[in-house]
Amino acid sequence: MSKIKVGVLGATGSVGQRFIQLLENHEYFDLVALGASDKSAGKTYSEAMQSRWKVSPKIPEYAKNMKVVKCNPSDTPDVDLVFSGMDSDVAGEVETEYANAGVMVISNSKNHRTDDDVPVLSAEVNPEHLDVLNFQKTSGKIITNSNCTIMGVTITLKPLMEAFGIESVFIVSMQAISGAGYPGVPSMDILGNVIPLIGGEEEKVEMEPQKCLGKVVDGKIKSADFKISSHCNRVPVIDGHTVCVSVKLKKQTTVDEIKKIWNEYQGEPQKLNLPSAPKKVIDYLEEKDRPQPRIDLMNGNGMTTSVGRLRPDPLFDFKYVVLSHNTIRGAAGAAILNAELVYKKGLLRAK
Amino acid sequence: MSKIKVGVLGATGSVGQRFIQLLENHEYFDLVALGASDKSAGKTYSEAMQSRWKVSPKIPEYAKNMKVVKCNPSDTPDVDLVFSGMDSDVAGEVETEYANAGVMVISNSKNHRTDDDVPVLSAEVNPEHLDVLNFQKTSGKIITNSNCTIMGVTITLKPLMEAFGIESVFIVSMQAISGAGYPGVPSMDILGNVIPLIGGEEEKVEMEPQKCLGKVVDGKIKSADFKISSHCNRVPVIDGHTVCVSVKLKKQTTVDEIKKIWNEYQGEPQKLNLPSAPKKVIDYLEEKDRPQPRIDLMNGNGMTTSVGRLRPDPLFDFKYVVLSHNTIRGAAGAAILNAELVYKKGLLRAK
Amino acid sequence: MSKIKVGVLGATGSVGQRFIQLLENHEYFDLVALGASDKSAGKTYSEAMQSRWKVSPKIPEYAKNMKVVKCNPSDTPDVDLVFSGMDSDVAGEVETEYANAGVMVISNSKNHRTDDDVPVLSAEVNPEHLDVLNFQKTSGKIITNSNCTIMGVTITLKPLMEAFGIESVFIVSMQAISGAGYPGVPSMDILGNVIPLIGGEEEKVEMEPQKCLGKVVDGKIKSADFKISSHCNRVPVIDGHTVCVSVKLKKQTTVDEIKKIWNEYQGEPQKLNLPSAPKKVIDYLEEKDRPQPRIDLMNGNGMTTSVGRLRPDPLFDFKYVVLSHNTIRGAAGAAILNAELVYKKGLLRAK
Amino acid sequence: MSKIKVGVLGATGSVGQRFIQLLENHEYFDLVALGASDKSAGKTYSEAMQSRWKVSPKIPEYAKNMKVVKCNPSDTPDVDLVFSGMDSDVAGEVETEYANAGVMVISNSKNHRTDDDVPVLSAEVNPEHLDVLNFQKTSGKIITNSNCTIMGVTITLKPLMEAFGIESVFIVSMQAISGAGYPGVPSMDILGNVIPLIGGEEEKVEMEPQKCLGKVVDGKIKSADFKISSHCNRVPVIDGHTVCVSVKLKKQTTVDEIKKIWNEYQGEPQKLNLPSAPKKVIDYLEEKDRPQPRIDLMNGNGMTTSVGRLRPDPLFDFKYVVLSHNTIRGAAGAAILNAELVYKKGLLRAK
Repeated sequence: MSKIKVGVLGATGSVGQRFIQLLENHEYFDLVALGASDKSAGKTYSEAMQSRWKVSPKIPEYAKNMKVVKCNPSDTPDVDLVFSGMDSDVAGEVETEYANAGVMVISNSKNHRTDDDVPVLSAEVNPEHLDVLNFQKTSGKIITNSNCTIMGVTITLKPLMEAFGIESVFIVSMQAISGAGYPGVPSMDILGNVIPLIGGEEEKVEMEPQKCLGKVVDGKIKSADFKISSHCNRVPVIDGHTVCVSVKLKKQTTVDEIKKIWNEYQGEPQKLNLPSAPKKVIDYLEEKDRPQPRIDLMNGNGMTTSVGRLRPDPLFDFKYVVLSHNTIRGAAGAAILNAELVYKKGLLRAK
Repeated sequence: MSKIKVGVLGATGSVGQRFIQLLENHEYFDLVALGASDKSAGKTYSEAMQSRWKVSPKIPEYAKNMKVVKCNPSDTPDVDLVFSGMDSDVAGEVETEYANAGVMVISNSKNHRTDDDVPVLSAEVNPEHLDVLNFQKTSGKIITNSNCTIMGVTITLKPLMEAFGIESVFIVSMQAISGAGYPGVPSMDILGNVIPLIGGEEEKVEMEPQKCLGKVVDGKIKSADFKISSHCNRVPVIDGHTVCVSVKLKKQTTVDEIKKIWNEYQGEPQKLNLPSAPKKVIDYLEEKDRPQPRIDLMNGNGMTTSVGRLRPDPLFDFKYVVLSHNTIRGAAGAAILNAELVYKKGLLRAK
Repeated sequence: MSKIKVGVLGATGSVGQRFIQLLENHEYFDLVALGASDKSAGKTYSEAMQSRWKVSPKIPEYAKNMKVVKCNPSDTPDVDLVFSGMDSDVAGEVETEYANAGVMVISNSKNHRTDDDVPVLSAEVNPEHLDVLNFQKTSGKIITNSNCTIMGVTITLKPLMEAFGIESVFIVSMQAISGAGYPGVPSMDILGNVIPLIGGEEEKVEMEPQKCLGKVVDGKIKSADFKISSHCNRVPVIDGHTVCVSVKLKKQTTVDEIKKIWNEYQGEPQKLNLPSAPKKVIDYLEEKDRPQPRIDLMNGNGMTTSVGRLRPDPLFDFKYVVLSHNTIRGAAGAAILNAELVYKKGLLRAK
Repeated sequence: MSKIKVGVLGATGSVGQRFIQLLENHEYFDLVALGASDKSAGKTYSEAMQSRWKVSPKIPEYAKNMKVVKCNPSDTPDVDLVFSGMDSDVAGEVETEYANAGVMVISNSKNHRTDDDVPVLSAEVNPEHLDVLNFQKTSGKIITNSNCTIMGVTITLKPLMEAFGIESVFIVSMQAISGAGYPGVPSMDILGNVIPLIGGEEEKVEMEPQKCLGKVVDGKIKSADFKISSHCNRVPVIDGHTVCVSVKLKKQTTVDEIKKIWNEYQGEPQKLNLPSAPKKVIDYLEEKDRPQPRIDLMNGNGMTTSVGRLRPDPLFDFKYVVLSHNTIRGAAGAAILNAELVYKKGLLRAK
């Protein structure tokens, strides 16, 4: 069976590099187009990257000599699907162009996340939101994944909502520098320091989980109705967002019951045995001081959500700590898993 | 006028070093005794420290050749007051011995903080708690200061409680490694990492602010009755605890009103013009991404509480960020300020 | 064909963990005994480790329930070979006991490195040094690997010595904290800092490469006769020692010739196709600012030596930068490669 | 006596900030003009800086409301002297314009350092180089200070050269991120990492000490004739360059003799009692693991050169470690000290 031809938009950026790394020898997808800015277009990927490749020792052999092109449907005529890791100042418009050109867009950018006919898809959480694709007016469809910070949090909330209902959530993040891309955060600002602000982040954190955990009503996504408060901080960690969560539930339960529900949680990617699906969606760590980014980052190849320290909360019901890999589970890996889901469900057809 | 003769117990530890640094040429106090473990006793301070002095380039000249003694009233016969920076596994008992021997004990250790006739004194917050000293049965009195993490938080809560009343508080800390002493946190555990547990810390954080903000009733301190929930984390920062706070108040108010109240707040140390009192108790920083430990740590010589990012909170009323220097304002500096207050109020007499 | 039964001595330490990680499903070796201190003996490995496992998210399943025993031949009766990652204060004696008991000892400890009938074996560099094993008087033989800092350096020197001869070498290291074990370096000492001393390191760095590059004469190893000067520094890096090298050669050559010789270098492990042998022994990186520990650490699964910045030196002939993984290539991985070499050459027999 | 009116060119950059910090209440100089790029010109300094002020908690009050102007003699009509902290891509030309306009230029930029009638002045090392000012053709004179990396090294070499003569020097630096300015080094590149390249640095390091330690011959500076080899590295340290030095001398001497000569060294700034002159030019630290940037950075208010670990070298004669504060002693502080020297020697006159 022939593979689906795909492209990566924003191929030279941090998320773009992850796409290229994770798409090497992919079972469903054949990466045939690397889109980037005008500055890079026309060069080979190696030439365009020089010393900007940061995610592993080497650019994969298969990508080295691919020619970089502009992010434009006419420059990438072969692709049936594009993964977008573009900056949000250009992503919105370019993604719409691709959708108009009949190309499926799997985006990591924030621009279309608030459109009520665009799912903020987390493959284990809300696969039923794919129903709204029918209501999108473009021939190509747009699917986004959520912000990296709430990716793991939302995954832990999903089984809690199903079993007990959610009243309110308090979120404090300690986020890795890779979330800001490259060059991103100046070292003078973060070495031995904490920055208690990430521009625009708290707004996303306080809104996206409810959309992700919402319902499809009349072809539109209606967000769940609980409230979230958040504080978002940058800390000197390379990869891996650590998040302190307190949650108030609608029904009473116990620490042990929650642990059991989390450890047993399986979503559609696990049932469909998708290539990027982690065996364990949620891994509850019994060690008293975990999860920690340095140790638990690559749990499930960076696709598992690690959780620990579940305990009663004096103001909410429970508090716990979530860790997920911000550029794999929180970005490129989540997008690829979304594409795999779409493919396996037959929603993606080669041209 | 002759100075009060004082000693430092735990003189070789992290907090002990700060005491020695901050007591150099002190206007009221003359440091005459350095107490430490049996291992160090008998050596000069320089010999005892070797390469363990960490708070600044050099051990102050005045302390270099002082002989270290054991932490025992009979080994420090001259002192009228001791500052205690001892480990909590020995501090409780030794401090009681000193109090029995008629020596005033200004302690940074946690052991006596929960005694209902021992104030958890924050000089700008609850000087009226000194009334309970009369009810202590020892001839020497014991005064503690609070845990370093909530020191700055409690200072910001005091004017809010006075003006509006406090309903509940949510606290998430990102704490510096110096809070764990030396050798303290192994570098393998914290470099490029976050540890989402500090043993015993959340218990203190959820209890001490209420005691500090409580009332004296019948010679005992009755804690304020609001509830606190906390998550405490260790981050790779040398000095300076950054704390995210959300607070629910009893009366409505505005961001501007709170900023004004904070910026104008003055306590008894400011009125008495105590040597270690910062001019500004609370400094509200208007920059959008502050306070930050690296930049704001030494605000007011490490004695000012820096606050920023005050904004409405979807679940509580307001959220904001607090930074204070954990080994100055949160430990040695606070203890010295407490001693200055006691001295200036005439509660401390030379033998 | 049945596998050789092996044990790991010092199984709870940093190097011990790497042994356990790297020996999972090993083609030649079956890890059947985990030796550690009396404190750990009698516990399962999981119990003994608690939160001390640091090298990856999880203790491998196969090791979790193995019972830890004492480091004593009578407590590990089944093994034909032990890998030793013990502290040097006990390693020397215990290793001799094992050799006396007929067990081959592959050691990462420094104790026997200076014995003139014990090879400091680097499998690609001096396999001919195995000849001295015949002259060891014990029935089991002892083989050490070199200090982690000079491991990669010596590998780069080997082809230079063969082709041009070496006159003198200048070495300045910037070493990772994992080299000091756990708890090892206190974070207060290294966060945002450089420590320009590693106790005992310069002595090893200035002596071991000459032994490793020496000749076997009359059953003893005679060190090569060039001189080395070194400065050893600790820097805030988790894994990966970066070393600046300047070298004076006996014959003239060019940058291009050296690069070619390095890139083509193959040792006996490559010829024998040993399981842990990297395909490339030395990987010369053409990027101008490499190698770097964060990016190049895992080159060749942590077994390749990454080199860069080869350029003329105003005082020596050439200068360059070497990076190797200090706990894989510089410790456990090197030891396992040594054992594989010994096995494949028929020097290791099951009891 | 009225003060000399001075300006700072490049006032918004890292070095510019240090100038503003160190010139507060200066005894000789009155900072009246802040020059910066067109983008900042016209704003108050506070407005221009927003959250770019990094060297201490607060912009000094005196500078906050000063109006930023362009770097042009006609925009700064009052000044008799300018301190230049401009980027090297513009510094050369602008500095020449100021010199032509009769303004003395004290520059931290590299552009004029190689001119043979411009001293690379280190006030304690080569005050006699001021003689060449007479040979500069402009009415205003240009004085540079050396590169930050070799500043401390050259200071330690000066008394060695005087007493013993220098044959050759080997230098390996581990440099702080502040040396790259702001935003400077991306955190993704340096957190938990070492970068073994600083563009253009080794060239400066291998040439400037010889000029600084050279002689004035016929109105031109003739460099000393020893050779230097260097490796320059970036490490995750905020401020403070640590440098490993090996030196070959022309005459034999001992470790004790060198320590004595260093500890007693005094230059003209000390004799003239200049305001920024440290009491100790060189401070030899007897602790075995020092100097370290975190601890020794502010020795002598950041103006003293800290040295340690002097010991014999197998290839050269001696090896040792130097630490100096790269933005104080290595930049703004050195420039101010140079200006103080010029002023006190009567070479600077008010217009």
